[in-house]
Amino acid sequence: MKKVSIIGATGYTGGELVKILLDHPKVELASLFAKIDKPSIPIDEEFPRLKGKTNMVCRNFEMKDIPLDVDLVFLAVPHTVAIDLAPLFLDKKIKVIDLSADFRLQDPAVYQKWYGKTHTRPDLLKEAVYGLPELFRDNVKGAQLIANPGCFPTSILLGMAPVVKETEGTIYIDSKTGTSGAGKKAAIGIIFSECTNNIRPYKVLNHQHRPEIEQELGILAGKNVNTCFVPELSPIDRGILTTMFMRLKKPVPTADILAKYNELYKNSPFVHVLPEGTFPELKNVIYSNTCHIGVKSVGEDLLVITAIDNLVKGAAGQAVQNMNIMFGFPEETALI
Amino acid sequence: MKKVSIIGATGYTGGELVKILLDHPKVELASLFAKIDKPSIPIDEEFPRLKGKTNMVCRNFEMKDIPLDVDLVFLAVPHTVAIDLAPLFLDKKIKVIDLSADFRLQDPAVYQKWYGKTHTRPDLLKEAVYGLPELFRDNVKGAQLIANPGCFPTSILLGMAPVVKETEGTIYIDSKTGTSGAGKKAAIGIIFSECTNNIRPYKVLNHQHRPEIEQELGILAGKNVNTCFVPELSPIDRGILTTMFMRLKKPVPTADILAKYNELYKNSPFVHVLPEGTFPELKNVIYSNTCHIGVKSVGEDLLVITAIDNLVKGAAGQAVQNMNIMFGFPEETALI
Amino acid sequence: MKKVSIIGATGYTGGELVKILLDHPKVELASLFAKIDKPSIPIDEEFPRLKGKTNMVCRNFEMKDIPLDVDLVFLAVPHTVAIDLAPLFLDKKIKVIDLSADFRLQDPAVYQKWYGKTHTRPDLLKEAVYGLPELFRDNVKGAQLIANPGCFPTSILLGMAPVVKETEGTIYIDSKTGTSGAGKKAAIGIIFSECTNNIRPYKVLNHQHRPEIEQELGILAGKNVNTCFVPELSPIDRGILTTMFMRLKKPVPTADILAKYNELYKNSPFVHVLPEGTFPELKNVIYSNTCHIGVKSVGEDLLVITAIDNLVKGAAGQAVQNMNIMFGFPEETALI
Amino acid sequence: MKKVSIIGATGYTGGELVKILLDHPKVELASLFAKIDKPSIPIDEEFPRLKGKTNMVCRNFEMKDIPLDVDLVFLAVPHTVAIDLAPLFLDKKIKVIDLSADFRLQDPAVYQKWYGKTHTRPDLLKEAVYGLPELFRDNVKGAQLIANPGCFPTSILLGMAPVVKETEGTIYIDSKTGTSGAGKKAAIGIIFSECTNNIRPYKVLNHQHRPEIEQELGILAGKNVNTCFVPELSPIDRGILTTMFMRLKKPVPTADILAKYNELYKNSPFVHVLPEGTFPELKNVIYSNTCHIGVKSVGEDLLVITAIDNLVKGAAGQAVQNMNIMFGFPEETALI
Repeated sequence: MKKVSIIGATGYTGGELVKILLDHPKVELASLFAKIDKPSIPIDEEFPRLKGKTNMVCRNFEMKDIPLDVDLVFLAVPHTVAIDLAPLFLDKKIKVIDLSADFRLQDPAVYQKWYGKTHTRPDLLKEAVYGLPELFRDNVKGAQLIANPGCFPTSILLGMAPVVKETEGTIYIDSKTGTSGAGKKAAIGIIFSECTNNIRPYKVLNHQHRPEIEQELGILAGKNVNTCFVPELSPIDRGILTTMFMRLKKPVPTADILAKYNELYKNSPFVHVLPEGTFPELKNVIYSNTCHIGVKSVGEDLLVITAIDNLVKGAAGQAVQNMNIMFGFPEETALI
Repeated sequence: MKKVSIIGATGYTGGELVKILLDHPKVELASLFAKIDKPSIPIDEEFPRLKGKTNMVCRNFEMKDIPLDVDLVFLAVPHTVAIDLAPLFLDKKIKVIDLSADFRLQDPAVYQKWYGKTHTRPDLLKEAVYGLPELFRDNVKGAQLIANPGCFPTSILLGMAPVVKETEGTIYIDSKTGTSGAGKKAAIGIIFSECTNNIRPYKVLNHQHRPEIEQELGILAGKNVNTCFVPELSPIDRGILTTMFMRLKKPVPTADILAKYNELYKNSPFVHVLPEGTFPELKNVIYSNTCHIGVKSVGEDLLVITAIDNLVKGAAGQAVQNMNIMFGFPEETALI
Repeated sequence: MKKVSIIGATGYTGGELVKILLDHPKVELASLFAKIDKPSIPIDEEFPRLKGKTNMVCRNFEMKDIPLDVDLVFLAVPHTVAIDLAPLFLDKKIKVIDLSADFRLQDPAVYQKWYGKTHTRPDLLKEAVYGLPELFRDNVKGAQLIANPGCFPTSILLGMAPVVKETEGTIYIDSKTGTSGAGKKAAIGIIFSECTNNIRPYKVLNHQHRPEIEQELGILAGKNVNTCFVPELSPIDRGILTTMFMRLKKPVPTADILAKYNELYKNSPFVHVLPEGTFPELKNVIYSNTCHIGVKSVGEDLLVITAIDNLVKGAAGQAVQNMNIMFGFPEETALI
Repeated sequence: MKKVSIIGATGYTGGELVKILLDHPKVELASLFAKIDKPSIPIDEEFPRLKGKTNMVCRNFEMKDIPLDVDLVFLAVPHTVAIDLAPLFLDKKIKVIDLSADFRLQDPAVYQKWYGKTHTRPDLLKEAVYGLPELFRDNVKGAQLIANPGCFPTSILLGMAPVVKETEGTIYIDSKTGTSGAGKKAAIGIIFSECTNNIRPYKVLNHQHRPEIEQELGILAGKNVNTCFVPELSPIDRGILTTMFMRLKKPVPTADILAKYNELYKNSPFVHVLPEGTFPELKNVIYSNTCHIGVKSVGEDLLVITAIDNLVKGAAGQAVQNMNIMFGFPEETALI
């Protein structure tokens, strides 16, 4: 039985982590922390759907209380906060899975540009493993520090990995996302009356996930990869449906492309490649850790569509999947 | 051509007022004000759906700039702010339609209890006319100061007026409301992820509209009327669907009840009493100034269901309807 | 390991049963049937969210193929179809949980009036146990035939059971329901464009669940109980939020009422009575088998609000809960 | 005062036509027809939101009753039905605006391939004017028969017209559409429970609007144009948000591109080109006849985003706009 703790347990991602870990048969959820305005609250008060399932409290996070009696800690804290927290645990040999962006970008200058803060621990950027298990499972196995991928990058990289080497030119990406991606925060842009009956492109070609996407696509392709990335806030709570258009170096039949996908993901229980002519829809993946992928080529044009739940495969579920691998548990444990 | 101004033009109610008044054939919308963080903004920047329809700007509201060159001013400002503004216009013989709650409650002590502020102009409470035209049209005609009714009270009073005298005991009220009723403001309770896939009772038996409802029901009934009022935040942008259950002093067939409704509303173009066996649904009234009413009695039990658009008949549309009456225009002018 | 089969596996309730039973540690889901237009389909084609979780097929249901090699069968078939199916299993000592209305009404004449068919097995009506475990757990234990309660009745009876004896006069009920309650069928009234931006009262005072509600309330109260029941189709997929207003024989403080609820449900893991001043919201119960209840009295008036998921606690979850009790498994097995 | 009739008045498009034409100051809506199951119904029974606004009835459509006393007829009938109806009016010198696809495709073989019926009046295909006023206003002026454009083509062609000549290679198109585009019909794929919490790509690269899009793009470009067109059913009632990615022959700064758009649309009151850095969102165009366009180039890559209301600019509003031009009325009459 491994002991774990969550810092940042009251956000949407934190809540999802709590839900999954409470049911995990090989892990004890030892403590919960968050920035709250009182010393502690019962976690089932913050998430009433947990009523009857736990008596845990979530304590206000203070440096003096950081949990050092655990085997692994999940950091579900805002970007720029994790930089300072992660080392405290790593120094004590406690594994860290960071769900923020703080250890995802290899180049500190890029981090500074997009997140507005000098990266104080570039040494850890080198150590951190980019935790997309389907692509980097072996690295995850031995990692001390996981940079858990962003939700958009997860939906894009799983769709691009099998073919990015065969493409040329810009990858055009249209990602429809649910509002939970913005977090549980008060902001006019995400209130119900502004989102229902609406679809809103935002941070067009300019989203902070873009450098993460291009960095990893570049690694997969072995060359620079350029993207046009359009995120669109859609009237859904959860899920990302990503449409990707690209140009192949030469025409390849859909069946041959699908074969590449099936080969790459044959041992990945959470990725399902749909049969030719079938495409993902969000309702089939939300509330689960799965990614559905549909593919179609026409001459040199290639279309790839993926669907994930942004809070599960795009955040908390993937984090637990990483943890399972790090601890040597079956990858699917406690995940659906 | 009458000149009017709106103070508070950038909220949901203000935006609805702008839209209606720009198309009003007998009124010139002379100026727009709101509390904003720059000296002025084009109103079509705040409401892009107005692009191509107007070049008006909305200016930051400052006391020194209050518009005294108009015939009537709409106050779409927060509760407790209108008390201080209204007199400035009334003193200059400018008519005021106040969409806040500041002049709705006749008893200053009740106002203080529910809105947390001493009412500094109890004298104006006596002068103010409660602007529900279907019930108090004659008073509206000569009014200088209109207290424009709340959205819930509008949906309830139109449903109760024909029968409240025939009832005994508590009126049980369940009102489903859209999120725009909360205004265009940043608050976690109204973000999309908290509202979609959800219905949330709030301020149960304790909503600030309750005293307004009971005051007006009391006036209509000629006796104290008690209510159990449950507002429910529903996953809709606009609209209030109110279900009212009550006990009649003696059994009355539905047809006879309907006759009373039809009689009371025969000259009211915006109220439609549905035939027996038919009940209102929200989609038939939103974006319009109409109220649909359905009624059914079974022995001594009576059920009344009403539907309105909270921003139109429950706010801006009703305000314009009041203005039309005050200026002697046809009541329906510029309203649908 | 018990073997079970589902007849009617392709509807919303059937799909929910499949999902729950696939994860049930003490039950083998042996076979799936439904009326479909080919001999069989992989169940993960009908419900793509099951991809990777099962290879089961669902076969077209024909009388000659009925599964007699199981310990229990779930009938998730339309009303009036179960009457003929249930006896085939009961005769072979196979337990039956019927999710239709066919065995819920004790009086065949009432059944005929509301479901338009003569009840051909009134003898089984006497044998059938009304499967609301929180109220009739002991009867469920020994049952051969369970009449699984309707979704509206579940939400109402759990809310009324602790207090119905203390009330007098009509119970006024306003139930907001999700569209999945109408089943997975093509009907204009439930298409997205007719339901979004809308709330629609339907079958007002005239819903086929009313006799079931009044029958069971009558049993609980030991006297006839009259209701005014208004179902309202709301823009949500899942869930029922029921508001009930009633009159107590004499004033009782909220705290005393809550004590009754807590006493009745103290051993019921799926019912959570909320603290005074707190009320249920749908998002906290959907996708789970729980029922949240909030209560408030004011003098002789009493307000009770309940929330459930119509497909889980209102159908498939409750059916599995009944099965768990019938087989002597822990009541919560495989349910959240 | 011109007299007009609508055939197909009970669908979503028909209902929108009725609403617009009832308020048209220069047109008398003389008669309404539809395939219904009784001789006639009050139109405000089919569309209760028209209560109090009209006493018109809609009659069951029979050939013997076709309205020949009008100046213009709107055909809002299913594809393949209009072919036979249009000539009956044209022969009597009655103008026809056909909202179906029957006269949009110039090549009868293409029509047959996509709509499954031999085109019996290829002669009329030559006469028909493709009614996209912003691009073909002069042709519309003198037309007897208007082929009113499809909703997707409208959203795409308005976005592509100013630049299609400057592009090379495939145009990649991702169009999010509301469910009203499927019409008011009973089909499982569009019921609320299948659409909410979901986004579903459908008819991927294979939608019947594709040949219409490529035909008109080809005319505008003066060369064959290839597209990858992905329609996506989104959880909204109304609106189409189209994202288009393409490659320019050479890099052009965004400002220069915007200049082309502003030039082309300078006299088009319903098209609004947004300032650089701003992109359309659906809520700003629904319920109006406007199209918002946002553009951004990066090197040789160009992104264009458009938003329209599928029932207004994509159908009924555009039809009335065409009628206004044909009758010499100001183009905006009765449209917002």
